[in-house]
Amino acid sequence: MAKQLVECVPNFSEGRRADVIEAIVEPFRRRKGCGLLDYRADKDHNRLVVSLAGSPGPVQDALIEAARFAAEHINMEEHQGGHPRIGAIDVIPFVPLQNMTMEMCVSLARDFGKRYHQETGIPVYYYEEAALKPDRRHLEVIRKGQFEGLKTEISRPDRHPDVGEPRLHPTAGATVIGARKFLIAFNVNLGTQDVNVAKEIAKAVRKSSGGLCHVKGIGLALEGRGLVQVSLNIVDYEKNPLYRVLELIRMEAARWGVSLVETELYGMVPAVAMLDSLAYYMQLAGFSPDQVLELRLLQSLSGQDE
Amino acid sequence: MAKQLVECVPNFSEGRRADVIEAIVEPFRRRKGCGLLDYRADKDHNRLVVSLAGSPGPVQDALIEAARFAAEHINMEEHQGGHPRIGAIDVIPFVPLQNMTMEMCVSLARDFGKRYHQETGIPVYYYEEAALKPDRRHLEVIRKGQFEGLKTEISRPDRHPDVGEPRLHPTAGATVIGARKFLIAFNVNLGTQDVNVAKEIAKAVRKSSGGLCHVKGIGLALEGRGLVQVSLNIVDYEKNPLYRVLELIRMEAARWGVSLVETELYGMVPAVAMLDSLAYYMQLAGFSPDQVLELRLLQSLSGQDE
Repeated sequence: MAKQLVECVPNFSEGRRADVIEAIVEPFRRRKGCGLLDYRADKDHNRLVVSLAGSPGPVQDALIEAARFAAEHINMEEHQGGHPRIGAIDVIPFVPLQNMTMEMCVSLARDFGKRYHQETGIPVYYYEEAALKPDRRHLEVIRKGQFEGLKTEISRPDRHPDVGEPRLHPTAGATVIGARKFLIAFNVNLGTQDVNVAKEIAKAVRKSSGGLCHVKGIGLALEGRGLVQVSLNIVDYEKNPLYRVLELIRMEAARWGVSLVETELYGMVPAVAMLDSLAYYMQLAGFSPDQVLELRLLQSLSGQDE
Repeated sequence: MAKQLVECVPNFSEGRRADVIEAIVEPFRRRKGCGLLDYRADKDHNRLVVSLAGSPGPVQDALIEAARFAAEHINMEEHQGGHPRIGAIDVIPFVPLQNMTMEMCVSLARDFGKRYHQETGIPVYYYEEAALKPDRRHLEVIRKGQFEGLKTEISRPDRHPDVGEPRLHPTAGATVIGARKFLIAFNVNLGTQDVNVAKEIAKAVRKSSGGLCHVKGIGLALEGRGLVQVSLNIVDYEKNPLYRVLELIRMEAARWGVSLVETELYGMVPAVAMLDSLAYYMQLAGFSPDQVLELRLLQSLSGQDE
């Protein structure tokens, strides 16, 4: 009953040609045990962001298939777009979802990187939790100078790839592969027009000004609604769960006599992040996510596909 | 993206022969698009309760397959057990889970009943929301006299089946098919040894003494733990959501100066029941279950199987 689930958010350097975009996502749609959650192409960035999830095996197989197609149909020598990039398949981050530790996800990313290079010939850099060198945890360090700059820089030892010879693939460039935690985008709207209240509260809760270690945030005005917003990213929802962030904000707002009007979750959220917070509010004892009917069904259906 | 999901909890009159039990559940395990969630055999009741879920098509196909096997291998003339029953496949309730109204679930139950009779020759009674006659909403009315009594009684017009000729299948008897809502078993443990507090609170919240229309409940002592418990069944979690039941109990307990120690959800719970309550506590605006990654993945994986 304890099947592993992994999310993956590959970014491809193609946001304009509809036929190429559809062909890239086709393996994620079709392959058993792998589900296409979302894909968004941005014409200005000339970039495609795909979100998929499933069992590690089928997810990796589908990635190889999509990458091979992308490498054949995207030529980085001709690519133009507003987003930094070094390859046709620019980044492949893996995110642990269920029955998977970060360590297991790092191993998965590194093993996948080797296979990926073997099957596509594209050199690989490891980043974030999967980085082999500390400075390569940061994407901007690896992508410095982008495709055009890296073409010559790659021969310098400090810019050698982690897997493969120190030369870019002629058309597909290089790929950054790694493991990271799930990021939750969370907004709290407050019943005041005083933007300073939102700014002060953001300062109180975010890491950069001494608050919670895994929270980033700013305060801003919601013009036209007569409200202000504390806009947050929670980069580790296990260490800084939703309910704790929210109740801390409620507590701080009370100091200003300001009430909490509503909250917003932007984009996708893992089920356990929500169930953990509900367990807090309801004082639930001994609850397991396995009791949620749809999660058990998902385990059962994922199992059939292996 | 909006695939239908249905749960089904068929009860079979076999709780002792392990090989027959395994063969009955095999189609639910194996068939694509249908997931076996749980199955429990009770030797005293000589009865098997199966819980499965999935897309309506595969769920119905698997039910037919399991029913055919059960009809061949269970002989009601020889069956003995402590639980009331009229057939080898005794009851088949369908429960709407996602993207399905109760009306759609009733249609599904009635259509399935006709097909079921055609393919097995077993007469069918419709119950609960799928009942064609008001008194047949209640299982005990249909099962009166059990298999042994119904053998002759079935010829009386008021006991004719809803589908099929007025005679039992010689070995498999008859089957009751219907549609009902999901039932949530919910306990609230309170920090007192005075069982009267739990009894009074149960009275305040349950339907039978004038409380919430879709809540049943009793108060009891948790001997050995020094606590008391309000033990509840919520028979319509949309009309009487978890948070409302819980906060009503908390409010009543405050009157006695009693605090809420913990709550327990027993057995399975649909995801939306939990998300709705979290949305209350977090004041979530504009949240859709489709934002929960695993639920979107389930939709995506279910879709592949059709």
